[in-house]
Amino acid sequence: MRGDLGMVACRTIGKKALFHSPSSTSVMHTIPILGPNLPDVWAHNNTYPTPTPSSSSSTGQTAAVLDCKSIAKDIRTQIAAHVCKLKAAVGTSPGLAVVLVGERRDSHTFIRIKLKACHQVGISTFVRQLPQHCTEDELLGVISSFNDDPSVHGIIVQLPLPQHLDEERIINFVSPEKDVDGFHPLNMGNLAMRGREPLFIPCAPRGCIELLLRFGIEITGKKAVVIGRSKIAGLPTSLLLQRHHATVSTVHSFTKNPKQITCEADIVVSDVGIPNIVRGDWLKPGAVVIDMGTNLVENPCSRHGSSVTGDVCYEEAIKVVSAITPVPGGVGPVTISMLLSNTLDSAKRAFRFN
Amino acid sequence: MRGDLGMVACRTIGKKALFHSPSSTSVMHTIPILGPNLPDVWAHNNTYPTPTPSSSSSTGQTAAVLDCKSIAKDIRTQIAAHVCKLKAAVGTSPGLAVVLVGERRDSHTFIRIKLKACHQVGISTFVRQLPQHCTEDELLGVISSFNDDPSVHGIIVQLPLPQHLDEERIINFVSPEKDVDGFHPLNMGNLAMRGREPLFIPCAPRGCIELLLRFGIEITGKKAVVIGRSKIAGLPTSLLLQRHHATVSTVHSFTKNPKQITCEADIVVSDVGIPNIVRGDWLKPGAVVIDMGTNLVENPCSRHGSSVTGDVCYEEAIKVVSAITPVPGGVGPVTISMLLSNTLDSAKRAFRFN
Repeated sequence: MRGDLGMVACRTIGKKALFHSPSSTSVMHTIPILGPNLPDVWAHNNTYPTPTPSSSSSTGQTAAVLDCKSIAKDIRTQIAAHVCKLKAAVGTSPGLAVVLVGERRDSHTFIRIKLKACHQVGISTFVRQLPQHCTEDELLGVISSFNDDPSVHGIIVQLPLPQHLDEERIINFVSPEKDVDGFHPLNMGNLAMRGREPLFIPCAPRGCIELLLRFGIEITGKKAVVIGRSKIAGLPTSLLLQRHHATVSTVHSFTKNPKQITCEADIVVSDVGIPNIVRGDWLKPGAVVIDMGTNLVENPCSRHGSSVTGDVCYEEAIKVVSAITPVPGGVGPVTISMLLSNTLDSAKRAFRFN
Repeated sequence: MRGDLGMVACRTIGKKALFHSPSSTSVMHTIPILGPNLPDVWAHNNTYPTPTPSSSSSTGQTAAVLDCKSIAKDIRTQIAAHVCKLKAAVGTSPGLAVVLVGERRDSHTFIRIKLKACHQVGISTFVRQLPQHCTEDELLGVISSFNDDPSVHGIIVQLPLPQHLDEERIINFVSPEKDVDGFHPLNMGNLAMRGREPLFIPCAPRGCIELLLRFGIEITGKKAVVIGRSKIAGLPTSLLLQRHHATVSTVHSFTKNPKQITCEADIVVSDVGIPNIVRGDWLKPGAVVIDMGTNLVENPCSRHGSSVTGDVCYEEAIKVVSAITPVPGGVGPVTISMLLSNTLDSAKRAFRFN
C-alpha cells in the first residue's frame, strides 16, 4: 500500500495555494514513505584540506584531551576480574565467536585487535574464517552453529561483507541473545524506544556515552550534534544521547548548513569517515568533542607511509573546545572494551550470574 | 556490566583539568548507560495560555490550511477499491483484531472510530473486550489466539493499558507480522535502520509523512524539528523524517531553549499533548506545521462543554507559517486511514497478492 495511493490535489482554505495542485485527477506521489534511498555522499578532498601542522604548545591549546586509553584499560581490568569470578562460579569463561569472510586487510586487523583483547581478559574465542566467495547458506550455517553452541555467548560477523551476501539477512540471523555488536533490529528497536532495555548496545556508541559519563560531562539538557548517521555508530549514538535527555540534532550529507548547526552544540560527536571534515570554526568554544572517525591518511613522516586520523581537525579543535578525544587512542580502545563488556554481560545472563 | 565498571579519575593532557577527577580510587558512575529514566514533564497551564479568540480573516492569515480530511477520504476510497479486488481474488477480506482492556472513555471512542472506518472500507473486525482487572495471562491468551488466526491480518491493543499490565511484554507478544500499529521493537528497529523496511510504520508518523508527500512539501535537506519523543508518534516521526533526509532535531521537556530551536525549522511536527505549547513566535515565517496534538480543552461555547485542540496555537501560527494542519480534522483522520492501509498491506502480504 505504501506509496501506491493516489495523490489528491491540494485544496487550500487560506488565501494562497502554496503547494502544487497537480490536477483534479489523482496522481501517485513518487517518493516512498520510507524516504528515497540516497547514499550519503559528503564533498571532501577539496573541501576539507589538512591544516598546516604546528605544535599545539605554541598555538594556545585549551582543550582537555580525554585520556580514553586509561579508561579502556581500567574497564578491561575490571572485566578480567569479573571473568575470573564467573569462571570460579560456573567453571566456564565467556565465549566470543568471530565470523570473518574474505581477505580484507582492515577487517583482519580489526579482528586481530578484538581477539587479542579477549585473550587479555580471559574471554574464549572461536574464529571461523570463510572464503570471499562463500555462499550465503554457508555463512548462515556457521552462524546457526554458533547460535546453538552454549559455549558461545557473543557472535560478531565482521562488516563489511562481500557484495554478493545479503548483510540484512545475515545480521537478522544472529540470535538477538548473542548479538554483542547490537546490530540486530530487535536490539536497535529496544534502544530507540525509551524505557526499554536492549540486550546489547552497539559498542562504539556505548563507548561514546561511557566516556561522557566517566569524565563527568553533563548530557541532560545539552545540545548535542551527531555528524553522520550510520547504523553502527551515528544512529545509535543519537538514540543514546536522546535517552540521556540531550537535545539531539543529526547532521548528514544532505544537511545544508552543517557548520551552522554544529557550532551551536555543547557536545559534538562525529562519525563521518572523512579526515578534517569538522574544522575549528564548526565548534562552539567550550564544546566537548567525541571523534569516532578512524581514517587512514597518507603520512610520509610515518614508518608505514600512512597514519590514522579522526574526522575532526584536531589542531584547530583543541584551541576552541573544552575537551576532545584523540584519534588514535580515543573512542577506538573503549569500543573494544565495550565488546568485551557486552560479551561478559551475555555470559552472565546465560548463567544467571550477577 | 552496564554502569558497574568503576569510574577512573580524569587524566588530562591539556593545561586545564575541566572535568571532575573524583580521586585516584575508582568510583562508580551512577548514571545508567541508557540514560536516567526521567519523565517528560512540560511546564504548562501557566506557561502556555490560550490566546484571545479572534477571527482569522481579520488577523492576516497567510497559511494554507492543509485539507487532511479530503486526503484521508481519498486514501479510504482507494483502500475500499483494493479491498474489493482482494476479496474478489482470494475470497476473503482483510481482518483487524481490536483488543480493548477496561472502560476508559477515550479508548472506547478511538476504537469506535477505528471500527467504523474499517466497516466503511470492507475490512472485517474482531473485537475482544477485557475487564479492567483482567490478568496479563488472559490478555496474552487473547493476543495469542489472534496471532494464530489466519483471518486476522492486523492486531491492535488499545493503549494505554491499566497500570497492572506490563505494556512492553504485551506489545512484544503481538506477532510482528500483524503489528499494524508498528509498535513492536522489531518493526521500530527496522524503521530506525536506514535501508531497511519495517513490516509496518506507526500510523500517525506515516500519516504525517503522507501529508507532506501528498502536498508536495520538500523534506530532503530541510531543517525539521519534532517536538515530543513518544514511542508512538514523536520518535518514529523523527526517524521517518531522517529517512527522508531532513536534518532532524528532537525537542523535549529537557530542551533548554525549545523556542530558539523550533523557530529555525522549515518543518515543525508537534507531539506533546499540551494545548498552545507552540506559539506563533516559535515558528519561522513560511514554515510548515504538522500538529499531532489531540487535546481536550474546556469550551463553554461547545455543546459538550469541551472541544479538541492541537499543540500549536493555531490563531497565532496561521499568521506566520506557510501551511498548517488543523485540529480536529488534521493528522487524526489520516492516521486512521494509515491503520486501514497497514491492515490491507498485511492481508496482501499474507495472500501474496499484489
